[in-house]
Amino acid sequence: MYELLRGLRVVEGSAFIAGPTCGLYLAQLGAEVIRFDNIGGGPDFRRWPLAPSGASLYWEGLNKAKKSVALDLSRPEGRELAQRLATAPGEDGGLFVTNFPADGFLSWSRLAALRADLICVRVMGWADGGPGVDYTINSAVGIPQMTGAADDPRPVNHVLPAWDLLTGAFAAFTLVSALLARRAGAGGREIRIPLSDIAAATLANMGMTAEAKLTGHQRPRMGNDLYGAFGRDFTTRDGARVMLVAITPRQWKGVLEILEIGGAVAALETETGVSFAADEGARFTHRGRLFPLFESAFARRTLAELAPSFEAHGVCWGPYQPLEQAMLDPRLFAGNPVFSDVTHPSGETYPAAGFPATLPQDGRAPVRPAPRLGEHTDAVLAGVLGMSSGEIARLRDAGVVA
Amino acid sequence: MYELLRGLRVVEGSAFIAGPTCGLYLAQLGAEVIRFDNIGGGPDFRRWPLAPSGASLYWEGLNKAKKSVALDLSRPEGRELAQRLATAPGEDGGLFVTNFPADGFLSWSRLAALRADLICVRVMGWADGGPGVDYTINSAVGIPQMTGAADDPRPVNHVLPAWDLLTGAFAAFTLVSALLARRAGAGGREIRIPLSDIAAATLANMGMTAEAKLTGHQRPRMGNDLYGAFGRDFTTRDGARVMLVAITPRQWKGVLEILEIGGAVAALETETGVSFAADEGARFTHRGRLFPLFESAFARRTLAELAPSFEAHGVCWGPYQPLEQAMLDPRLFAGNPVFSDVTHPSGETYPAAGFPATLPQDGRAPVRPAPRLGEHTDAVLAGVLGMSSGEIARLRDAGVVA
Repeated sequence: MYELLRGLRVVEGSAFIAGPTCGLYLAQLGAEVIRFDNIGGGPDFRRWPLAPSGASLYWEGLNKAKKSVALDLSRPEGRELAQRLATAPGEDGGLFVTNFPADGFLSWSRLAALRADLICVRVMGWADGGPGVDYTINSAVGIPQMTGAADDPRPVNHVLPAWDLLTGAFAAFTLVSALLARRAGAGGREIRIPLSDIAAATLANMGMTAEAKLTGHQRPRMGNDLYGAFGRDFTTRDGARVMLVAITPRQWKGVLEILEIGGAVAALETETGVSFAADEGARFTHRGRLFPLFESAFARRTLAELAPSFEAHGVCWGPYQPLEQAMLDPRLFAGNPVFSDVTHPSGETYPAAGFPATLPQDGRAPVRPAPRLGEHTDAVLAGVLGMSSGEIARLRDAGVVA
Repeated sequence: MYELLRGLRVVEGSAFIAGPTCGLYLAQLGAEVIRFDNIGGGPDFRRWPLAPSGASLYWEGLNKAKKSVALDLSRPEGRELAQRLATAPGEDGGLFVTNFPADGFLSWSRLAALRADLICVRVMGWADGGPGVDYTINSAVGIPQMTGAADDPRPVNHVLPAWDLLTGAFAAFTLVSALLARRAGAGGREIRIPLSDIAAATLANMGMTAEAKLTGHQRPRMGNDLYGAFGRDFTTRDGARVMLVAITPRQWKGVLEILEIGGAVAALETETGVSFAADEGARFTHRGRLFPLFESAFARRTLAELAPSFEAHGVCWGPYQPLEQAMLDPRLFAGNPVFSDVTHPSGETYPAAGFPATLPQDGRAPVRPAPRLGEHTDAVLAGVLGMSSGEIARLRDAGVVA
């Protein structure tokens, strides 16, 4: 646990991935992050995968290092408590992350009436407030139709909720940026981050919309071929599959040398009149001629023969390995100081990730697990809202908090 | 263009996607972002897609709103200029984003000797400094083997460089967080963000590693089925394909009503003894029985019949549409205030994305295009490094800058 954001108090009223990862990153940098949920759990509280106990491994992964408050959000008293939490006083409070509707009881106008300098980061599906999630936004921008083997016309959804994850990190960025501005006297504001705008802007930022405009159509699907340079999956003599990438001239020359296909490639250059070293695009254009040379070179070598030469020559490659094998890989999980064994609310003990950046000058503190639902209800109502134990007991008895 | 980060000066020495998107987001929030590149362009300067002029649509998309300085980084004088830029004085300077090697001429120790309170955000491939890019990290954590149709064993790479994009937004978050800490007296620091740690931590945060540990294997591939709840692609009578998702009870009930399959689903509940409304996981477990009911309901209706009912009932769905069609969709591109027409360095005029969040209280300024390579060399050397025009002319004549 690093401490760059120590002293900040962030309230999170969100579910699923984007809002919760925003809160997670903030908490892992030392902010106090208070997540409130409906009594019994929000819509993500039973999200798969589940532990044998029935607890959600997803929920306890995404809510590590946070505090949990449980409120009955179906009742006016519970909703008022949520509003008061989001807008509670304190110089480095007034930071709220949510995916609740823009026009509901956690709307900007209701919250700003309680705290004018509030910073409210609101994750949305569609920009107009319509329901959209990673899968439905992704299909609407064309990615699944660009994904997968060229010989199979079926669209392929990504299994990584990439838009959610990008939105979550982006939300954390906008929140701390708005705090910087607030400290400079800029006041509070709402920041709306629709997945739909994140997706549309991202495709445009990478030149994909300009390309579609110029060509009249989106990029065709091409399996695992890397677009515009050299890259694809290849299979070794012993059946191992590896992803090989050569974008820079150095990467290209290194791999030709190790695979001993420099002569054949030079002959192809003479025939086609291009320089593959100088023109990464030529490697893509002529990949139909290049790939067979690589395929036979890989088919003559085992992974054990190739891996050390690849490493020694700085070749950019990666094995295809299932997650259970990756978990034994010392460069990813086993022995990686980002991870440590933690006992989670599910009752299971397994390695949990700390902050995924490394600050060499700062020490890593132990990874803190997710809270039990409602674990901090009393402490937060007392500490943040200044309630007496009598008031809290009354709310508990009335079933407004748990 | 919003102004939350007005007054900050960030220097970027990076290439490809992660570092440049970090700089892009900072620039689009009003920071002065100065990117330096090798004379003639860095390794991403000719990255596809290309405009007819040969200019990279990718480069000009990812470097909007920045300033460009061109240096000969192969020579000691050029490298020294890069070091001086990264560490130039100024209270809100000393912010450096890079993907240069951790142990090279832009190492932390060399830079910190020039400016002790520098904040250096370093995007890396593997945490040990080994070469890794989105494609090769992705294959190593198992995602391509989880992606795609269950009847096809070939791994499917994602076409969206999700790890790069996530790392870029995360880098922007850490940079601003470190600035908050620096202002509070915490000094400078290096922040290393390896794609490998971002990927490993993300899979763990979503419970996927815990799941693999408990089951002994990673999640099997399952085509477009949404894991753990209800979701898949379906085809309408007129051949339109849509992604349908029902995670919350409300979403589930709404879609049964519109598709008029409540009775058949209730019969299945009686037979299996589960409540699909109450248990999202049961919808996944029994999807083999549920999907045919949905398939026939979709096959009896056209998209034009379904879309208005879906919208009216808040169903979570999205069309599968290619990017060229998405570009006509008013919810994504056409008429979206995030976008505006800009003439780019390639000479092409096309819609470019501004900041993908919306701050309703703040006005959007026009989208600023990418610079020409080296467009701001003289101005930055004079303004940031305080060089005289004579010194700059000497460097130009010597080919150290361009």
